[in-house]
Amino acid sequence: MCSPEVMSKVHEAVSRRRLLGQTGAAAAVAAVGVSTGSLSVRSARAQDASPVASPVAGSLPGGFSQIVDLSHTHGPEFPMYPGAVQMTIENLFTVADGGFYKNLLTLDEHTGTHMDSPAHFVEGGTTADRLPVELFLAPLVVIDISERTATDDDAEGTVDDIAAWEATNGPIPAGAFVALYSGWETRLDDPAGYINLDADSVQHYPGWAPEAAAFLVEDRDIVGAGVDTLSLDYGASTDFASHVTLLSAGKYGIENLANLGTVPATGATIVVGGPKHIDASGGPTRALALI
Amino acid sequence: MCSPEVMSKVHEAVSRRRLLGQTGAAAAVAAVGVSTGSLSVRSARAQDASPVASPVAGSLPGGFSQIVDLSHTHGPEFPMYPGAVQMTIENLFTVADGGFYKNLLTLDEHTGTHMDSPAHFVEGGTTADRLPVELFLAPLVVIDISERTATDDDAEGTVDDIAAWEATNGPIPAGAFVALYSGWETRLDDPAGYINLDADSVQHYPGWAPEAAAFLVEDRDIVGAGVDTLSLDYGASTDFASHVTLLSAGKYGIENLANLGTVPATGATIVVGGPKHIDASGGPTRALALI
Repeated sequence: MCSPEVMSKVHEAVSRRRLLGQTGAAAAVAAVGVSTGSLSVRSARAQDASPVASPVAGSLPGGFSQIVDLSHTHGPEFPMYPGAVQMTIENLFTVADGGFYKNLLTLDEHTGTHMDSPAHFVEGGTTADRLPVELFLAPLVVIDISERTATDDDAEGTVDDIAAWEATNGPIPAGAFVALYSGWETRLDDPAGYINLDADSVQHYPGWAPEAAAFLVEDRDIVGAGVDTLSLDYGASTDFASHVTLLSAGKYGIENLANLGTVPATGATIVVGGPKHIDASGGPTRALALI
Repeated sequence: MCSPEVMSKVHEAVSRRRLLGQTGAAAAVAAVGVSTGSLSVRSARAQDASPVASPVAGSLPGGFSQIVDLSHTHGPEFPMYPGAVQMTIENLFTVADGGFYKNLLTLDEHTGTHMDSPAHFVEGGTTADRLPVELFLAPLVVIDISERTATDDDAEGTVDDIAAWEATNGPIPAGAFVALYSGWETRLDDPAGYINLDADSVQHYPGWAPEAAAFLVEDRDIVGAGVDTLSLDYGASTDFASHVTLLSAGKYGIENLANLGTVPATGATIVVGGPKHIDASGGPTRALALI
């Protein structure tokens, strides 16, 4: 174990080397004997094992019986909206060489399973760090359009889909978070298939139809809406109308949600571990479904 | 609103400029007409208003009545363990100039209110992204030593403090998260006072005593332990014994917790929105107390 003085000195040495730029940083990593290769070659998807279930009904706080992880593992290879910066992970220390293991992260706020705050598309909108925490515990509604997306990459969650859900499950509960399940996460093993560009570089994946977004904010009482794809709008959108409608109404979005196919259509509760850095347009978000 | 093609081109232009390094990045920010000055001069602490309370008893999912935010707003000025890299936030786009607002973050995993995974100090230990999600919903125990820390910067949470808590509240519940409340967050307006270095650059702030950490992992059943200071160990520690004891036992830690003074000593539930990037030694964590 290194003394605090040694740890502090190593920290400072790395900080100084970082000022030298990329080459200096690489040298610093080399100096502490660490290879970062494994971070870039391992698939983020490979870590998404089945959600873990608690075995005893009602045994968790709040009378819950099971927790499902709605967040993907993300990393340097997680698919990004075209043109966005891929995350990098720079190892700073290992236990063997520095006394402890830690990394330096560089990432676009909109990486992995992440929140879009109202401020992302709305001048003067609420940033993620300022959203009231009561919005982060909500009835979870899951609207499944995976049957349609199996044959139509441009399928959207529509007002008809919401009506069909309500015909079976009753009205969307007040204060709900409404998630659209398209089954898109099966494509995460192949990021290009997840982004799904055509020959004209137009993206093709499901999202919320603008009319459905308008229905949710005008005719129902929701805290936010989510998708299991890269965007609240479907990939081929040219006007981001669903983003604008949801975020202008002060709702938040969550993109790239995981495991929605394993939670019930109604009855679960979502807990949203949203980002809390200052002035956040959004950020990686740990979302859990409590069942 | 910009078209997706324009957004993508702006993205790519910024990515290219980033390759030029600091100056290029600054030019890129200037090119989209954004000042990042406000991000560096605003105090993270200034955003930590009173925790938001839901007004209706039992009205939240799980029968909860109130949510308290246990995470501080963090940013470039949040105090860090000496020698660690301060977070930077680089604005990439604004709504006015790019059609949407977002930032690029560079941060040490151990920034703000954050998790320490077992892997942080233990070779081969579980990384934060791989911790089972059942560990993230737990009875919250708050042990208050703020009376002692008012006159002793080196005060530690001891086995006696745990015994006193149990004499009043009964045994620590199985699967609990045990947080030490020292009241240290009142110093966040002055980062130097929070880190509290003496003339020999030794830090002075409260933490868990190694014997208390050993008691918690050997004689009680906990999922993790937390502090409202920079380190699970008190600032003057030279061996990080509480870190090693807790993390070697497979428990996780949370440092820089907020608002512990506003939650009851027992009866609340903590939800831990831990980081989920690949191979995480830890990372910013949104922790909520459900009451």
